[in-house]
Amino acid sequence: MTEFLKVVKYEEAIERIAACFPLRPIESCGLLEASGKVLAQEIVGSEDLPAFNRSTVDGYAVKAGDSFGSSESLPAYLTYRGEIKMGQAAAIDLERGQCAWIPTGGMMPSGADAVVMVEYTERLGDDSVLVYRPVGPGENLMLRGEDVSQGQSLFTPSQLLRPQDIGFLASLGIEQLDVYGTYRIGIISTGDEIVPIQAQPGLGQVRDVNTYALAAAVKDCGSMPTSYPVIKDELEGLREGVLQALAENDLVLLSGGSSVGIMDVTIDVLMSIPGAELLFHGLAVKPGKPTLAVKIKDQLVIGLPGHPVSSLMMFYIICRPFLKADKRHRIRVKLSQNIASQPGRDDFIPISLTEGEAGLEPWGRPLLGKSGLMSILALASAYIHIPYEQQGVLAGSFIDAWLF
Amino acid sequence: MTEFLKVVKYEEAIERIAACFPLRPIESCGLLEASGKVLAQEIVGSEDLPAFNRSTVDGYAVKAGDSFGSSESLPAYLTYRGEIKMGQAAAIDLERGQCAWIPTGGMMPSGADAVVMVEYTERLGDDSVLVYRPVGPGENLMLRGEDVSQGQSLFTPSQLLRPQDIGFLASLGIEQLDVYGTYRIGIISTGDEIVPIQAQPGLGQVRDVNTYALAAAVKDCGSMPTSYPVIKDELEGLREGVLQALAENDLVLLSGGSSVGIMDVTIDVLMSIPGAELLFHGLAVKPGKPTLAVKIKDQLVIGLPGHPVSSLMMFYIICRPFLKADKRHRIRVKLSQNIASQPGRDDFIPISLTEGEAGLEPWGRPLLGKSGLMSILALASAYIHIPYEQQGVLAGSFIDAWLF
Repeated sequence: MTEFLKVVKYEEAIERIAACFPLRPIESCGLLEASGKVLAQEIVGSEDLPAFNRSTVDGYAVKAGDSFGSSESLPAYLTYRGEIKMGQAAAIDLERGQCAWIPTGGMMPSGADAVVMVEYTERLGDDSVLVYRPVGPGENLMLRGEDVSQGQSLFTPSQLLRPQDIGFLASLGIEQLDVYGTYRIGIISTGDEIVPIQAQPGLGQVRDVNTYALAAAVKDCGSMPTSYPVIKDELEGLREGVLQALAENDLVLLSGGSSVGIMDVTIDVLMSIPGAELLFHGLAVKPGKPTLAVKIKDQLVIGLPGHPVSSLMMFYIICRPFLKADKRHRIRVKLSQNIASQPGRDDFIPISLTEGEAGLEPWGRPLLGKSGLMSILALASAYIHIPYEQQGVLAGSFIDAWLF
Repeated sequence: MTEFLKVVKYEEAIERIAACFPLRPIESCGLLEASGKVLAQEIVGSEDLPAFNRSTVDGYAVKAGDSFGSSESLPAYLTYRGEIKMGQAAAIDLERGQCAWIPTGGMMPSGADAVVMVEYTERLGDDSVLVYRPVGPGENLMLRGEDVSQGQSLFTPSQLLRPQDIGFLASLGIEQLDVYGTYRIGIISTGDEIVPIQAQPGLGQVRDVNTYALAAAVKDCGSMPTSYPVIKDELEGLREGVLQALAENDLVLLSGGSSVGIMDVTIDVLMSIPGAELLFHGLAVKPGKPTLAVKIKDQLVIGLPGHPVSSLMMFYIICRPFLKADKRHRIRVKLSQNIASQPGRDDFIPISLTEGEAGLEPWGRPLLGKSGLMSILALASAYIHIPYEQQGVLAGSFIDAWLF
């Protein structure tokens, strides 16, 4: 029998890639542009926030004790001392039996330790306020330093910055920060049978799906794709194309040149580039046996299968973890049917999701059989992973799934 | 007691907004740029895909019947008829006892109905091939029209286009398509106490968190934010600011001008604009009672609370559903503790997520008590919704949560 690929295990492939994945550039970024990026520095609180005790409601600042025992039928009767204005220091010093109007966000006057919401009060003329409900000390206010205290570590590197994080950073007065930059990723489809998507494929030809699907997937990971023209299966063109893409990018994704025979040509071409080091060719992974990776100095070329479904699945499985810090794409599903798996390889299987019964997690329905079809992948919402050692998973099991 | 807001229920508010939310523009878009956008047209298959029967492996095209009964010890012996080249029509016509080399993706020769993977074959000289394993008819090939058949409806409007969808569209030869365009959303923070984030706030002052957090949230929904300078709480400036933002955007988000008193000023200003129609002011929602919406001709102004946590939460609760077609932010969690809720309002509570036990969904830990703090919102991964009628949720319950 023909000697086939010396296959490498999935975890081993991930480790080998991790060991030499190009360092992500760090760049300075304005706060408004930082949303969705990944923080590359630590952020420490430089001041107390809030900087003063603030009301969290509209109402009357009081000494809580003065409201004790008050009710609809027996309101507390307080002397009105005036109004705290937004954005101004509170000039009033409250004494027992007194109160002051305070707006949401207003600075608490000294002497006050709680705020009664306006709904539970009534103003009587210029001088008095009735309070219909008691408040406890500290109620309806935020203490100085309660949100942030000076010197506290607030953010660590590698955190994805979401809108609430941007808001939090704004509250700290941080205008400019270091974030991880964008990987530039070159994408090259190879294959004699590939025609541009505009063309009507002749018999034996297919349209260039991978250039588009991989560019979209790269963009979805927050990296910047550059697509190159399709390269035929021949040595010189491939070598030139790869060299150009390496010169213009941090990382190059080849697709299609990785099946037997063609894969040898691709490896020969890559290994002829000075500084090249083969990480693996052939993975014990379905779908993606014909996958290869070559380190070239501080860059990487990853060769994905030519089949569009395998190519995109392998991108998700071995490239996305390095590109996307976002963990929100993992969910848990209940399998709708048994899945058999051949031990001795890692299986990745696309699934569709259907609404679970009330109070239960969604059902994951494996898209088996025709899973090599692009139309089926378009029906999939997620994929599951059956590890190397396992013989399969039973219907009804709970299993992690990764959203596309 | 002061007459407070005439509060409207959450669902009612959503319905009123839905009834007049600005129509989303439709624009034509190249396939490479369409990833992450929402389709605005139907896509129907215009041809059969694949256009010919294709091999899905490297190996030998055979008549399946010729391989029946073959094994390692008793291989089938076939006559080699030649090689199918990638990207070329298959010129060979197979007869019984014959085979032809075929690469992955190659066109099946007529007469062949299966492919034996190269691993289970051995070439003997120029003329013969040994087959060590049987294949069934149809094995290792994809039939013409199996992926797409002509006339089949493949995509419907409002679908989010993910990388695999882009790949599928590429396989159909679709270069240009109609997608929903980007809403332009103006963002105005109002309040006498608000200072730019660069400034050191004086006593009673706070930094302008909302402009940043809301711009980031708008961008995260795929819309285009435009931030305007902070407006003080006074009629003329507010009116001018709103008119400018309306002229330059589809939708305007105000924040901060919605607490009692100030809210009245805001409503007066908005209602003085010709064509204005009040949708609601005051919601039976926590956190977000002081929320308002005014329709102005075919545009909307939404007034969010001034408090940064409430403002951002209300954006997620009443704005995001209209901006983001993506459903992937709903997950299911198991509550780690009881939550009490006051019937007669909808409660939205930020939660953090912790890894579930093996095989179980994640635990959701409600961030109660100090949930008004921006630092706490930055710790939250999702939020849960306790409906109007409910008195709370018990620890251990399964409940839907929406990822930020």
